[in-house]
Parts: sequence; C-alpha cells; structure tokens
Amino acid sequence: MKLTVKLIDIGTRGVLLHRLDASDIGVLDGDRVQVTNYTKGLSATAVVTRTSTLIERGTIGIYAVTNSRLHLADGEAAEVRDAERPASLDYIKKKMRGDRLTKEETYTIVKDVVDDTLSPAEITAYITASYIHNLDMDEVEYLTRAMVDSGERLTFTTKPIVDKHSIGGVPGNKISLLVVPIIAASGLRIPKTSSRAITGAGGTADLMEVLAPVEFSASEVQQMTQKVGGVIVWGGATNIAPADDRFIMVEYPFKIDARGQMLASVMAKKYAVGADVVVIDIPVGRNTKVPDVQEGRKLAREFMELGERFNMRVECALTYGESPVGHSIGPCLEVKEALAVLEGATNPNSLIQKSLSIAGILLEMSGKAALNHGYDTAEKLLRNGKALEKFREIIEIQGGNPKVASGDIAPGEHQFVVNAPQSGYVIELNNKSLISIARAAGAPHDRGAGIYIHAKKGTKVAKGEPIFTIYAERSWRLQKAIEVGRQLMPVVVEGMLVDRVPQVHWV
Amino acid sequence: MKLTVKLIDIGTRGVLLHRLDASDIGVLDGDRVQVTNYTKGLSATAVVTRTSTLIERGTIGIYAVTNSRLHLADGEAAEVRDAERPASLDYIKKKMRGDRLTKEETYTIVKDVVDDTLSPAEITAYITASYIHNLDMDEVEYLTRAMVDSGERLTFTTKPIVDKHSIGGVPGNKISLLVVPIIAASGLRIPKTSSRAITGAGGTADLMEVLAPVEFSASEVQQMTQKVGGVIVWGGATNIAPADDRFIMVEYPFKIDARGQMLASVMAKKYAVGADVVVIDIPVGRNTKVPDVQEGRKLAREFMELGERFNMRVECALTYGESPVGHSIGPCLEVKEALAVLEGATNPNSLIQKSLSIAGILLEMSGKAALNHGYDTAEKLLRNGKALEKFREIIEIQGGNPKVASGDIAPGEHQFVVNAPQSGYVIELNNKSLISIARAAGAPHDRGAGIYIHAKKGTKVAKGEPIFTIYAERSWRLQKAIEVGRQLMPVVVEGMLVDRVPQVHWV
Repeated sequence: MKLTVKLIDIGTRGVLLHRLDASDIGVLDGDRVQVTNYTKGLSATAVVTRTSTLIERGTIGIYAVTNSRLHLADGEAAEVRDAERPASLDYIKKKMRGDRLTKEETYTIVKDVVDDTLSPAEITAYITASYIHNLDMDEVEYLTRAMVDSGERLTFTTKPIVDKHSIGGVPGNKISLLVVPIIAASGLRIPKTSSRAITGAGGTADLMEVLAPVEFSASEVQQMTQKVGGVIVWGGATNIAPADDRFIMVEYPFKIDARGQMLASVMAKKYAVGADVVVIDIPVGRNTKVPDVQEGRKLAREFMELGERFNMRVECALTYGESPVGHSIGPCLEVKEALAVLEGATNPNSLIQKSLSIAGILLEMSGKAALNHGYDTAEKLLRNGKALEKFREIIEIQGGNPKVASGDIAPGEHQFVVNAPQSGYVIELNNKSLISIARAAGAPHDRGAGIYIHAKKGTKVAKGEPIFTIYAERSWRLQKAIEVGRQLMPVVVEGMLVDRVPQVHWV
Repeated sequence: MKLTVKLIDIGTRGVLLHRLDASDIGVLDGDRVQVTNYTKGLSATAVVTRTSTLIERGTIGIYAVTNSRLHLADGEAAEVRDAERPASLDYIKKKMRGDRLTKEETYTIVKDVVDDTLSPAEITAYITASYIHNLDMDEVEYLTRAMVDSGERLTFTTKPIVDKHSIGGVPGNKISLLVVPIIAASGLRIPKTSSRAITGAGGTADLMEVLAPVEFSASEVQQMTQKVGGVIVWGGATNIAPADDRFIMVEYPFKIDARGQMLASVMAKKYAVGADVVVIDIPVGRNTKVPDVQEGRKLAREFMELGERFNMRVECALTYGESPVGHSIGPCLEVKEALAVLEGATNPNSLIQKSLSIAGILLEMSGKAALNHGYDTAEKLLRNGKALEKFREIIEIQGGNPKVASGDIAPGEHQFVVNAPQSGYVIELNNKSLISIARAAGAPHDRGAGIYIHAKKGTKVAKGEPIFTIYAERSWRLQKAIEVGRQLMPVVVEGMLVDRVPQVHWV
C-alpha cells in the first residue's frame, strides 16, 4: 500500500498508521510493517502503533530513528506492507520455556536487536528469560560471537594486545588511569574502551573526559593505539559490540545484570578490540556485585573458560570491594588523585597497590615481566615517570592538554564537611550510599561533583574530625546531596566496644 | 524544576526532557519524573526519554496519554521533579528470582500497570517472569483480586448471576450468541462481556457488532442486563479489570498466555460482573491452546479452585477443539449461522450441541433445570422461539435492529471455492491455517470476510466437490487469502488408505 509520509520529529523507533490503513495492511499494534523508499532503494522494518485521530488515512507517521534508515521526506510516498513476524520472537519464547538457544538462533536475536527490529519490550523479554534461565557456556559463546560480529572490530598486526576490565560495583575505581599508561609505557598496546556511569558516580570514560575527548570511531581508536600504545575512550561511540547498549538499557530499570549477557558483553568488547591478554577485576564484598569469594571464583572460572574459547588468555583478580578505591569519588576528584600518583604521590595505598597489581599481572602474562616480578616492573614504570609521560601522550593524541597537572584540576566550589559525631572507629562507610550522595551532588554530569573521604573504614577518628567532604558545582545540588546523606547515614562511628551486655541482676 | 510544556500529539506515554535538564533533575532514560499541574492540582508520574535536539532546554515534551492525566496546555509551566523508583520494579525482580509475591506486592504491581507507571517493557518483564515461574494459587488469587479492585464492578441485587467464558483456540466458536439468549430466556441474568479478536478471525464482540453496538460503560451493562436479562458487549469498553488489556498487549508479540495471568484475567472479569455461576469452555486438541485432556483437566481444576476462593460456583466443559464449531468463520458468516439456528435451523450439529450443552450446565447449576435435564431445557428454549425472542430484545436494547433475520446478513461479495483435488476423505482441516486465511481475507475488520466450510474433517468428498469457500469484501483481499491458502494447504483429502507398505521382494 502506498502511503504519504509524515515525519515525526521524536527520537524513537516505529511508525504510526491510521487504524483503517492498518486493517487494510493486516496489522495490529505491535505487528511490523516493511516501509520502502523506492527512490533511494532503502527499506526498514518498524513496529506499528495504530491511531484513529493523530494522522489521516493514507498517511504514515514515521519516527526519527526509523527514518534514519529510510531518508524519507515529508509528503513523499512510501510503500508499506506487512512484514513477517521476526523469527527471533520464537527463539525468545523458546528461551522463556527454558530451552537452550543454538548459535543461529542467538545470531538472529542479536541481529534483530542491533537492527532495531525488536522493541524494548521484546528485548526485555529476552533479557528476563536469560536472567531466569541462565545461559550455559555454549550459549554465552554464541552470544559473544554474535555481539562481536554485529559490530566493528580492531585488527592489529602485532601481538600481544592487552586489555583489562572491571565488572564494577566499587566506587572510586579509577585504576585504568594508572594501568593503561603503565602498560603502554612498557611497550605493550592497550586499546581501552570504557563505559560511562549509568548507576555509578563516574565511569572511566567520564573520568578521562575531564582530560580529553573520549568519543572516537573504531578506526581512530586503532590508529591512536598504534601510535602511542594506548587510549582511554568511550566504548559507546565506537560501534564495537553495539548490542550491549540495548541490553544495558533494558536491564537498567530492574538493576539486574543477567550473568550470560554480562559475560558475553565484557568478552565481546575485549575480543572485538583484538585483545589476547586480558585481566578481569572482580571486586568482591558486601554492597558490590559479587557478595563473596566463592561467587567471585565461580565468575572468574566462567570468564576464563570463555576466554579459552576465543584463544584469549584471561586471568581474574578478585579485589577487595567493600571500601572505595583511594579517597575520591567523582570525575575531577578521581582524576586529580590518579594524576597525583602518576606525578609521584605515594598514597592512597589502596589505589596504588590495586593498580600495580593489575598492571603487574598483565606484564607477566605478556612476557614483559618475569613471574612474580610484574608488580615491581609496574612500580618502576610508575616511579621513573615513564607512566606519566605516556599518559600525557595519550591525553595529547586524544586531543587534550598534555601539560595538565593534578594541581590544575579543581573540584566543585560548593563543599560540605561531614565530621565525626563522636570519637571512635569508622566501622561502616557504605558504598551504595556514597554513590547516591555523589550522584545527588551532580556526579558524573557535573565533573566537579563528588566525595573526598578523609577517614576510610577502620580509621580511628576523634569527635569533630572530618570523615568526608561533599563537593558540588551548584549550591542546590550540594543541599540535595546533604539531604540524601542525612537520609542514608553512610557512616557509622563507634568505640571498639560496640555494645555492652550488662550483668544480670536478680531482684 | 519549572519547565515549559510542549505537548506532543502522539498517543503514547512519557515525557521528553533536554539532556541537561534531565541531568539537573537527576534522571536518566527510563527513570521517572513527577509532573505537576499546580493550576489544576493534577499530578502524574512518567518515564523519561532524554534528547539534545528535539526540545529546548527549559521545556518538557509531554505525550498525549500522559497529558490526559495532567490537562496541561502548550506553553504552560509545569513542576517537574524526580520521582521515586516504583517499588513494583523490585517486586517484578523478586518474581524474576523465582520468589512468591505477596498480596500487597501484587496489588502494587497491578496498580502501577493500570496507572501507566510501568512501561510496556517493564510489564513484559513481569509477564515473562510469571510465565516462567508459574504463579501459585495464592498468587493467582491476589492477582485476581487486584485486577477486580483496580477496575469497575457490577452489583446486582438478585442472585444468581450467570456467566460463561471460552478460553479460545477454536475457530467459529460463536456459541455465546446462542447461550446468552437461552439463559436470559430462562429468566436468569447473564451480563456477558466479550473480547474482540486479537489473533483470531472474530471475537464474540466482533460478531455481536454485526447486529448492534457493543461499547458500553459498566453501569450501562448493568442496567441493560437488569432490563432484558442479558447483553453481549465488548469488555474493553467497560473498565472492568483494565489491567487485562495491558497484559494481553505485551503477550501478543510472543503469542504466549501466561497461565496465572490467564486464570486471573478470566476470573477477575467474571467476579467483577458479579457472576456466581460460571461455566468455562476449554477447547482441547491439537492446534488449540490445550493439547490434550490431561492438560485440560488440570486447567479445569485450577479454575474451579480459584472459583471457590471467590465463592463462585465454577464448572468446566472440556470441548472438542480440533475442528471449527459449525461451518462458518468470520463475523457475518458466524452471525448468520447462529441466527439461523435461533430461527429454527437444525444444523450445524456441532454448534447446536455445544451451545445447548454449555447452556444446560448453567441451567442445572442455577436450579433452572434438574440434574441431567439442562440440555433438554435449553433445547426447549431454543425450539419454542423464546431464545430468538430474547436475542431480539438484547439486540434492541443494545441499539441494533431487532427485526434482523439470518437471510438479511450477506457475507462479502468476492468469493473463491476450494474444491477437492481428488476423491477421498477430508482427513485434515487445520484450525490455525483456516484462521490465517480468514484474516488474510479481511476478518474480523471486514465483517463480511471469512470462510464457509462445506466438508468438515472426516467427510467423504468426490473430486471437484467444494470443501470450503473464502469470502471477502474486497477483491485484493480475496486474492491475498487465496495466496495464503496456497501456502498453508489447510486441507488434506486422502483415500482411507493413507499409505501402502509394499511386500518386501528379495532379489
């Protein structure tokens, strides 16, 4: 059926049909039509919404994202016919029933996810079914391959290509800002793609953006890495494993991390950048994603088995996740802290030790350091200034100012200090609450917003001594963060004697 | 934050925020804001989509369905702040994990479904989780109560109120057009709400609409039933158990029927109209929703147990579902066939027998007939013309022409006869294929479109004798239906000797 195009300037997917036209075509809400632009030889499948009032008979409303595949103009004619129901819906239903999906079925689903053939609701059904009926290792392998093959890839001519990934869950985990320059300074190549924070106070991409642009195409990432040995960019701009963004989007409302999709997403991104030596950082502990060491070991085995299937050497580091890494949370504060370490600061110990450990494992795995000497080698590259020098090259090639120093980076001017209400030990400093406060203060969008922790868990404080400072760029944001802090009470200070059980007096 | 309203004339839910405003408010895509119209004292929660280009900073785009709760005008100011994440998301996640939901949790979910607080993707997650982790009988009861309490109800002062429901899956199942007038003619009250076809060739509401309007409010349904004893209306117009439509919408792409939601939806609608005597028709067989008698019995027990919890007397009829009921499929053809039976026709036997059986059970359960005499009582009401007279009253009170006769109803003028390709027995006449052909011909929207079956399964036909006729209102529709028929080959005619296994010759 020929219909006149009416463009709808809303950044979403789909088409709007008059109820009577929909009936003529034979489609209901949620069905799909194929829309063809004959002039330009373009065609796209789109999910139908019907209306009796919003558009006239004989016209088709086309939303912006769908039209980005069609390039139709307002008033132009388009051919519209009913499209076949995507086979991927049957495969998703199969997964709902608890059956295993084949390689072909998985590829079909991922293709339909990337092509916008499946609606967010349909992708949600897939993720929900996978969350409940955990993917087995074959299915995870198929999913990983499908995610790699549906996006762009980097192809380096030299080996090894090194990479690292943290599964997240611990605030202040800025170690990539140290690991990447150390590795690149050793002569290895590390094309690090990172994420922006979704629920956190700052992803590595948000941090790096304080220093330089982070949005590059896959081929730019490859060229920059070849030139200076490493980059720290935002993966979302590269079209590497593009299905991942869609999965994360539908997981977001439920705050779930479907295990199979998480494994596949991490490994697809590593494989697609050509990495063959990989360390996965798995923070463990209460208020992280992995509650205990047993769970952490299990997840580690899965990452390593998956790595074997892709001829990647994968090691995992279970790391202490119950306290923030270093003292700072939020883009500027974290970048300032990391830069200071590169410039020679000898604390915070947690940040330095974790970064050198991860870098050390990578150096050993790549043959740049002998067994058990990776840590020392990494430390040397940090202490002799080579890592700082390399970091400046990385900042420069990404378009930032290579002369930047930690002293140049200022956090938000609005500040509030939380003091110890009594003398004692900081026995609790809740990760999730700290993130909530930092986000309320404006992080990650307001780069200067965040938290600086003066007294971490286990520290002895006197009454009135500062425990942490909240930073914000705007005063109302600071007020909001203080309010959130009052509700969440992230800090508990107690004497070592937590409670006294009095002797029982008989009366 | 105060934002200027920009109405978006699209019949969907949600709001559009500039990325920077969203950041100020502290929300991401998929988060919710509370929008308040202070002038009118109205407030609504809506899911956020962010944009950098489609609207300016300082404005909020509001879609039509969301604004139907807010009554804001273009250019007006609205207060926008971040809304709390609905607790129902946590309950849905709990169900994903396989835990049982409490009454309160179920009520919260259903309220958020009806209030449009949950997005289609989020409702899909709920349905998917319930489909995989079957609801137990307590959960089904809570869901039923929640569905009843979130909509309107009928309250009759007399007892009993009678109702019937077919779970569907068999084409041509027009029995309500006979059962309702028979029951009403007996002096009982039967406020029958029906559905429109979603995947079928005609729901009872689509059929009845050939004769009279079917869209009424709950109170109109009650008044009409009180006056003439029965109605046949579209449930979707009544606001009875409104969550049901949302559930069906998200199930549609996957063609699933989550068992718990199905049980709850049927029983909520019966309970909400005040029914206390109910028969459920469960068609059984290949190519229906219930593949065998064991499954049918199990489902029947669940319906009956649920009925007990609501003090409703429920009986179930497992019916033969492998062939269409009667000879006709599609609104006009089915209505014509049913009216002819009311007028005195003595066939088709399958339609008459099924209708009288179901009506008979209801008459016995209501004390209008002695045990084992329900069928005869129903037959008497059919044969003495009382049922026809009552049906005319029902048509009249719903606003149709009470003088209508079966001879007045003409199917579509475009016809195509499918003849037997050879002599033999009709050994296969596939339900699903027949529905697909009828839909391709235009049913249920084109009321005159459908199929008339001359030779049902098991009938002996000579080569060239007609097996079925396809009817359509438009010739291109007929061509399409013929094409679909050629692909699906719904009929198999064979000699009784289906295959010959020849004697083995040794060579």
